[in-house]
Amino acid sequence: MRVVLAPDSFKGSLSAATVCAAMAAGVLRALPGAEVVRVPMADGGEGTLDCIGAVTGGSEVRLDVSGPLGAPVSARYLLAPDASSAVVELASASGLPLLDPARLDPLRADTAGTGRLIADAVARGARSVLVCVGGSASTDGGTGLLRALGVRFLDADGSELPPGGGTLVDLHRVDVSQVPAEVRATRFHIACDVTNPLVGPRGAAAVFGPQKGAGPADVDLLDRGLTRLADVLADQLGTAVHDLPGAGAAGGTCGGMLAVLDATAQPGCELVARSVGLPEALAGADLVLTGEGRLDRQSADGKVVSHVAALAAARGVPAVALAGQVVPPLTELYGLGLTAAFSIADGPRTLDAMTASAAELLAHAAEQTVRLRTG
Amino acid sequence: MRVVLAPDSFKGSLSAATVCAAMAAGVLRALPGAEVVRVPMADGGEGTLDCIGAVTGGSEVRLDVSGPLGAPVSARYLLAPDASSAVVELASASGLPLLDPARLDPLRADTAGTGRLIADAVARGARSVLVCVGGSASTDGGTGLLRALGVRFLDADGSELPPGGGTLVDLHRVDVSQVPAEVRATRFHIACDVTNPLVGPRGAAAVFGPQKGAGPADVDLLDRGLTRLADVLADQLGTAVHDLPGAGAAGGTCGGMLAVLDATAQPGCELVARSVGLPEALAGADLVLTGEGRLDRQSADGKVVSHVAALAAARGVPAVALAGQVVPPLTELYGLGLTAAFSIADGPRTLDAMTASAAELLAHAAEQTVRLRTG
Repeated sequence: MRVVLAPDSFKGSLSAATVCAAMAAGVLRALPGAEVVRVPMADGGEGTLDCIGAVTGGSEVRLDVSGPLGAPVSARYLLAPDASSAVVELASASGLPLLDPARLDPLRADTAGTGRLIADAVARGARSVLVCVGGSASTDGGTGLLRALGVRFLDADGSELPPGGGTLVDLHRVDVSQVPAEVRATRFHIACDVTNPLVGPRGAAAVFGPQKGAGPADVDLLDRGLTRLADVLADQLGTAVHDLPGAGAAGGTCGGMLAVLDATAQPGCELVARSVGLPEALAGADLVLTGEGRLDRQSADGKVVSHVAALAAARGVPAVALAGQVVPPLTELYGLGLTAAFSIADGPRTLDAMTASAAELLAHAAEQTVRLRTG
Repeated sequence: MRVVLAPDSFKGSLSAATVCAAMAAGVLRALPGAEVVRVPMADGGEGTLDCIGAVTGGSEVRLDVSGPLGAPVSARYLLAPDASSAVVELASASGLPLLDPARLDPLRADTAGTGRLIADAVARGARSVLVCVGGSASTDGGTGLLRALGVRFLDADGSELPPGGGTLVDLHRVDVSQVPAEVRATRFHIACDVTNPLVGPRGAAAVFGPQKGAGPADVDLLDRGLTRLADVLADQLGTAVHDLPGAGAAGGTCGGMLAVLDATAQPGCELVARSVGLPEALAGADLVLTGEGRLDRQSADGKVVSHVAALAAARGVPAVALAGQVVPPLTELYGLGLTAAFSIADGPRTLDAMTASAAELLAHAAEQTVRLRTG
C-alpha cells in the first residue's frame, strides 16, 4: 500500500513536515509494510519556503536588505541545490509584521527589499523564481521590487520617483532599458490567492490599504497612483493590468510583475504542489492524507486540502483530511474530491491541550484512517 | 451496503436508541441507498431494559413493590409481546440509589421487591426471565428474591428468618417445597459482569458491602451469613456456590439464584446481544458501527464495544467504534476484533458543548466513516 502524506501546516502548532512525520508514524503503526511518501505542502503563504526547502533541498540565503520603510532587515530566500531556481517570500523583506504597528507609512512603504532578494538569486544563476506574495506592508504596485531589478520610474522631469505608492501619481515614464539580460531571461511565477484587480473599489488600495495604515485620503491617493502606473505600463509596454484578477495582490506587486516581467500568477497551492512533486507522488498511490489546522468551507477556496483532494480525485486516489477542527458542511470539499475528514480531537479538550498533544493525536488519527480503510 | 448499528448508550448523554438514530442519519447522508439495521445495545447494566424493549417491543409492567428496606417503590420490568419472557433490572426495585445515603442499613436490605417483579412476570406467563443484577443495596444472598418465589429460609426453631443478610448466620434449613410449578418451569438467565465469589476476601460482603454502608463488623457478619447460606444450600440442594465466579454479584443474589433456581449467569453483553438479535443482524453485514461514551482499555473487558467487535470479527465484518472520548492504547480491542475507533469530537470543545451537540457529532462521524470505507 502506497500512502502519500500531503498536509498543510497546522498554523500555530505544527509545520507541514512535522505533520507528515506524525502521520507517517500512525500509518506505519497500522500497516508496518506501507510505502509512505511525504510531501509537505503549503499554500504560497507563510511557511511555503520551508515546505519547499524540506522537499527539494537547497540552501537558505540570508541577506540584509531594506525593509518596507528602508530600515535594514535580515531576510532570506531559498536557492535550489543547482541554483537554477529560487523561492522568495515577499513577507520576509517587505512584510507588514516587520513594522511597528504604531508607525505605519502606507504612502512610503515599498517592496525594494524583495527585489534585492530576487536580484541576488538571479545573480547566483536562478532563472526561475517563485515569488510568494501576501502579507505586504506596501501599496507600491511592485515598483520597489522592479527598481531593484533595473527598472526606473521617472517623473515629468525625468527624475526617479521617491519610493512608495504615494508618489506614483507623478509617474510619467517607465524605463526598462537598464534591466539586465539575466533578469529578462528569468521566468517569474507568482503564488497569488486573491483575485482583486489592481485598481478601483476592489483594488489593492481600497481593499488592503486600510490594514496597512491608509486612511481614506491615502487610499484615494494610492488608488490614483496605481491607476497612473497601470496607464503608463499599458501605454509603454502594451499590457493593461488595471482589472486583471490578482493584479491587486501585495499592494499591486503582482500587477507590476505581470506587466513588466511577463510573470505568471497562479494559486499558491498549484505552484507549491508542482514544486514539491505532488502530482508525480500521487501516481499509483492508494491513499492520500492531507490536513490543516482548521477545515471549513473556506478550505474549498484554493487551500491545500482542496487542491490535494482535486489532484487525488483526478487520479482516482481517495483523499482524507485530518484537522485540528472540522466544521461542516463539507459538501463543497466533497465535490472537489475529498473522500472524508476527521478531527484529530480525542474527546473534550481545550485548544491548548490539543496543541500540546497534536503530534500524537495526528498519529492516532492517521492510524485509525488506515485501519478503517484496510481492515 | 448493509450497515449494522450496535452502540451502547453514551452515559449521561444519549440512549443507545438515540445513538442509533444519529448514526443512521450519518450513514444515509454518506450512502443514501444503504440498508441500515439498528440494534441498540446495553451491557446488562442501566438502560438494558429500555434497550431490549426498543428492539423486541413488549410492554413495560409497573408495580408497587417493597424497596430495599421495605418502603414501597414503583418498579418496572419488561414483558415480551407474547408474555413468554421478561427482563428484570434488579436496580429497579432493590437498587442502592433508591435509599437515602444517610440511612443505609446493609444488614436489613433485601431483594424481595425484585422477587415480586419476577413472580408477577411468571404469573403472566413468562417462562424465561433475564435478570440484570448490579447496583443492589443488599447483601442477602438473594434470599428476599427467592422468598417472593416461594422459598422459605428457616432458623433452628423452624421460624422464617427476618429479611436481610444480617440474620443469615441463624439459617438452619431452606424449604423449597412451596415453590410453585410455574417458577420451577422457568429458565432464569443472569446478566452478570463481575467474577467475585460469594464469600471470603473477594466475596460479596467484603468487596461490595462497604459501598452499601457496611462497617467492618457488618462485613464480617454478612460474610458469615453468606457462608452459612452457601453451606445450607450445598447440604440440601447439592450445589456449592461459595467460590463460584460471579456468585457474589448483587450481594450474593447471583449465588442464591444459581443454587436454588438453577439459573445460568453470563456476561450482560452476550445476553443482551442474543436478546436483540445481534448475531443474526451481523450475518451478511458489510460494516458495523458500535460505540460508547468513553472508549478505553476497560472497554475490552466485557463491554458492548468489545463484544460487538468480537461477534463482527467472527463473521468477517469490520467493526468501527465511535465514542465521545477515545483513550489509547486500543491494542487489546484490536486483538478482540475492533477495526478502528474515532472520537466524535470535532475540535477543541468542553464536555458540555460536546454533550449538547452529541447527536450531530455522531452523525458526522458515522458519515465520515462510511465515506472513508466506501469512497
